[in-house]
Amino acid sequence: MKSLIIYSGGMDSTVLLHEYKNNIKLAVSFDYGSKHNETELFYAEKNTKKLNIEHIRIDLKNIFKYFQSDLLKSGGAIPDGHYEDDIMKKTVVPFRNGIMLSIGAGIAESNSLDTILIANHFGDHAIYPDCRASFISPMKDAIMMGTYKNIKLIAPYMNIDKRKIALKGKEIGVDFTMTYSCYKGQEKHCGKCGTCVERIEALKGFDNTVYE
Amino acid sequence: MKSLIIYSGGMDSTVLLHEYKNNIKLAVSFDYGSKHNETELFYAEKNTKKLNIEHIRIDLKNIFKYFQSDLLKSGGAIPDGHYEDDIMKKTVVPFRNGIMLSIGAGIAESNSLDTILIANHFGDHAIYPDCRASFISPMKDAIMMGTYKNIKLIAPYMNIDKRKIALKGKEIGVDFTMTYSCYKGQEKHCGKCGTCVERIEALKGFDNTVYE
Repeated sequence: MKSLIIYSGGMDSTVLLHEYKNNIKLAVSFDYGSKHNETELFYAEKNTKKLNIEHIRIDLKNIFKYFQSDLLKSGGAIPDGHYEDDIMKKTVVPFRNGIMLSIGAGIAESNSLDTILIANHFGDHAIYPDCRASFISPMKDAIMMGTYKNIKLIAPYMNIDKRKIALKGKEIGVDFTMTYSCYKGQEKHCGKCGTCVERIEALKGFDNTVYE
Repeated sequence: MKSLIIYSGGMDSTVLLHEYKNNIKLAVSFDYGSKHNETELFYAEKNTKKLNIEHIRIDLKNIFKYFQSDLLKSGGAIPDGHYEDDIMKKTVVPFRNGIMLSIGAGIAESNSLDTILIANHFGDHAIYPDCRASFISPMKDAIMMGTYKNIKLIAPYMNIDKRKIALKGKEIGVDFTMTYSCYKGQEKHCGKCGTCVERIEALKGFDNTVYE
């Protein structure tokens, strides 16, 4: 298996990077103009370097300037609250996973890689339609049938939640202080936005989280 | 129906633009670094202006620099020959339709449009896996399920060939001299590359084609 990973520098994809490190030939990060891209990508760079995995960073700001979302620098303030709250819908970036996976599929085919890995998980399902199995399953077929080499899409965390990802990461020695999640993109995690609230719940009882 | 069209400036998508002109709110063209993008886009600009349709042009060269294809400026020379010849496979840009459709889906959702139109056709099927029904069908589901508003993908020419598209265009008054196809991207169509050969066959017997 020669894999390309869609890699943000957040805790989920960092666990995935470590779990599949022996199969991953290329990690691809995207700067789509979100408030937290720069900070996430700082950690993406560090982790891929540590694991000696080739890392590319693709600037998609040309595309996302036509999008509406409070997650983007062009949008409104990031709301505080739980991830599953209705207000968090304002942070959805339409079809982001579809775009990242499609670009990943083309790069994989161009570079003779056979698999794409993505770290969407069960907890994302409530507000992100492009994280659910009902999206991943046809997208998997589209990538398989739309490429010469029938590239496979694997989403190993689709049916587990962030807590289980955190426990898996702990087991394989992931340093969570070297991951970044906060949607506000400041140097320190705010602890109040949806993704911070979810991260705190997932890392409960762990040593060395960024909130301690 | 409020539609976004994936629009190249070639003859197929120009016929589609005219056929659905009353429903199209936004035409999106992509510059992905191909040898013929500049020339195609010159005509894309002209046709959308004439029909008074909003037109945006998205620069994807940041992405496609990681791709291998003789269609791209970074690749080798465009081979001469028939479109269905094996050598034309070198001009395939991996998963290009997947990428354009995904970006289109995100822009459509961000701008309250409900449909995406694409002009892939039966003649493309031989060498382009991402033009076949086996790709379009799951991609349609992925876009439908991966967007809040269940955006529809419509590929009206999927089961007809370029000749039938040409006849349809003639019927509705499309000026084919205002479209560009040649992969070599020079000012005049070369008449020898796969897409020129296919275009000549499709426009046989027409007045005012660019080859006369």
